Amino acid sequence: MQAKRIVLVRRPTGMAEAADFSVEQVELPPLADGEVAIDTLYLSVDPYMRGRFGGEGGPHSALPLGSVVAGSVLGRVTASRAPDWAAGDFVLAGTGWQTAAVVPGSAVRAVRTEGLPLTAALSVLGSTGVTGYWGMVDIGRPAPGETVVVSAAAGAVGLVASQVARIAGARVVGVAGTDAKCAHLASEAGLHAAVNYRAADFADQLAVLCPEGVDVYFDNVGGPVSQAVLRLMAPGARIVICGQIAEYNGERAPGEVSIPTLLLSRGASMQGFMVMRYADRAAEARAQLARWVADGQLAYHETVVEGFEATVPAFQSLFTGANLGKLLVHVAD
Amino acid sequence: MQAKRIVLVRRPTGMAEAADFSVEQVELPPLADGEVAIDTLYLSVDPYMRGRFGGEGGPHSALPLGSVVAGSVLGRVTASRAPDWAAGDFVLAGTGWQTAAVVPGSAVRAVRTEGLPLTAALSVLGSTGVTGYWGMVDIGRPAPGETVVVSAAAGAVGLVASQVARIAGARVVGVAGTDAKCAHLASEAGLHAAVNYRAADFADQLAVLCPEGVDVYFDNVGGPVSQAVLRLMAPGARIVICGQIAEYNGERAPGEVSIPTLLLSRGASMQGFMVMRYADRAAEARAQLARWVADGQLAYHETVVEGFEATVPAFQSLFTGANLGKLLVHVAD
Repeated sequence: MQAKRIVLVRRPTGMAEAADFSVEQVELPPLADGEVAIDTLYLSVDPYMRGRFGGEGGPHSALPLGSVVAGSVLGRVTASRAPDWAAGDFVLAGTGWQTAAVVPGSAVRAVRTEGLPLTAALSVLGSTGVTGYWGMVDIGRPAPGETVVVSAAAGAVGLVASQVARIAGARVVGVAGTDAKCAHLASEAGLHAAVNYRAADFADQLAVLCPEGVDVYFDNVGGPVSQAVLRLMAPGARIVICGQIAEYNGERAPGEVSIPTLLLSRGASMQGFMVMRYADRAAEARAQLARWVADGQLAYHETVVEGFEATVPAFQSLFTGANLGKLLVHVAD
Repeated sequence: MQAKRIVLVRRPTGMAEAADFSVEQVELPPLADGEVAIDTLYLSVDPYMRGRFGGEGGPHSALPLGSVVAGSVLGRVTASRAPDWAAGDFVLAGTGWQTAAVVPGSAVRAVRTEGLPLTAALSVLGSTGVTGYWGMVDIGRPAPGETVVVSAAAGAVGLVASQVARIAGARVVGVAGTDAKCAHLASEAGLHAAVNYRAADFADQLAVLCPEGVDVYFDNVGGPVSQAVLRLMAPGARIVICGQIAEYNGERAPGEVSIPTLLLSRGASMQGFMVMRYADRAAEARAQLARWVADGQLAYHETVVEGFEATVPAFQSLFTGANLGKLLVHVAD
C-alpha cells in the first residue's frame, strides 16, 4: 500500500514555506502482529506545529529534520492484526501529515463523538476544544458579569474558550482579524461583541467595550493585540497564555525573550502581588513571623540611618542597593 | 510645636533627586478634640514610594505635588485628646516623612511587636514582612525540595520571603548586589546560596546553582536579573512579581509597557497554559463540551480544506488568519 507524506526538510526562517517540506511517496510496510493500517480521513493543522519545526520560533520541542510532520488525524482502519481493532473502525491517531500509515494498535484510540459528527473529535472535542475548556474554566475562572477578552476568538481554541466564558455568565469580547469573523462571533457564537484587530482604532474600540477593564484575557496571539488588552487589565485580572502566534515565526531581536512565550513554554504562572490585598490576613502573617524569629528560624535585619535629614539620601540608596533588610530612618529617641 | 517635613515639589525624571523635595519647618496646629500629637521615632523609606512620586515610573497612584511624602512611621504620643491614647504610647502612623504630626486618634494604631524590639513593627512585622510572608506562602507556594530564587534577597521584603521559603523546605538561592550581602544571606539567613548579580558571569552562576530549574521566582527587581532567572523557569513555575525596582525610575522607551509592571499594578496573574497538563481531565472537558453543543449553548465551527496537497498552504493560512474555528484537511472519505 502506498502513502504520501509531508516531511520537514528544512527549519523555517520566519513563516514556514513550501520549500521547508517535501512530499514523499512511500510504500507502507506489511502489517506486523499487533499493528493496524489506517487511512487518513481528516488531518489537523495547528499553529503550535510551527514551534516544532524549530528555527527561531516557538515553545515546543523541535521535530528532527526528515520526519513526517506530527499531529492528530481522524482515520479509518483498513486492515488490522491488533486484537482491539477491525477494518472499518474510525480511530484517532497521531500519525500527522500523511495519507495512510501502519502503527501499533496501542497507538490509536477510539473516536468518541458524544453524538456529534465525526470531525468533532478533532475540533470541539479534540485537543483544541479541551484547551479552550480547561484554559478558561481552570485558569481564567470567569465569574458572572466579569469582562473576558479572547484573542484569535474565531480560531479553534478561541471559539470554544470564548463561549465557555459566555456560558459562565461573563461579558465576552472576541478579537479576530476580519469583519466576517467578528460577525460570526457576535451571531453564531453569541459573544457580547467582537473587534477586528486590523482596525486603525482597535485599541480605542476595545477600551470602549471594556469600560470596567478586562478581568480575564485568554490570549492566543501575543504581540500588539496583547499590548492593547493588557493595558486594560482590571485589578486581580487573570491572563491565560494559551498561544503566542505573533511570536512563533521568530520576529524578535536575537536574544530577546518574550515573557509570555517563556511562561507558555513552561506552563508557568506570573502574578503581581500587592500586600493591600492581604490586609485582612496581615495579623496572621505577623504572628507566624514573630514565632519564627522567637524560635531562631527567621533572621531579620534593619539598616538604620541616623537623622531626619538623611531621609532623601536614604531613599535614593534603595535604588543603588546600599541597604540590607529594612531601611529605617531614626528620627528621635 | 514645630515639625520638619519633606514635601514633594517636583516629579522626578528617572532617579529621585534632592531637588525634587523641599524640607519645610511648620508650626503644628493645637490639638482638637479626638486628636493626638506624635513624635516620629523611626520613619520608613521604601522603593514603592518612587511610584507615588509620579513622573515616568511606578505602579502606584501619584502623590499630589506639595504633599508630605506618605509612609509608615513608628511614633510616640506626646499629647492626646483622644480617648484611646495617652502621652508616652508607642504607635504606628501613616504620617510619612515628618518629625512630628497631629492626627486623629483613629488614624494611629498600637504597636504590636509580639515580643520583638519596637522597630520590628516597621520591618519583619511591618508591611514588608507581611509582603514577604503572603507573597511567598500564598503565591509562590514553595514545596520541600523545590528551588526558589529571590531577587533583592537582602532587601526588606526579600530577606523575609527567602527565609519563609527556606523554612518551607525549599532550596533557596538569593540574588543581591554586593558580596557582603551574599555572605549575610548564606550565613545569617541560612540560604542555600547567594549570587551577586553584578558578577560578569551572573547568569552562568545562577544556572549552575539551579540545575533542575527554578520552581518559584520571587521578584522584587525586574530588568536583566529577571531575564536571567526567567530563562531557568521549571515546568509549572510560579513567579511572584512583588516589585520592579529596575522599572521604577522609568528607563524604558516611551509607550513601551513592561508586562511584569502591568501585572504588579493590577495585582493580576498571567499563566502559561498547556493542555498536556490536563491529560487526565480531557474526558471531563469533552463530556461537558458535547452537552453544551447538544443543548445549543455552544456553537462550533470547522474550516475544512480539501485534499492532502492543501496541507502546507492550510498550515500557512493559520498565520494569516484565514480560518474560522478548527482547521482540518480532508484527505479521504
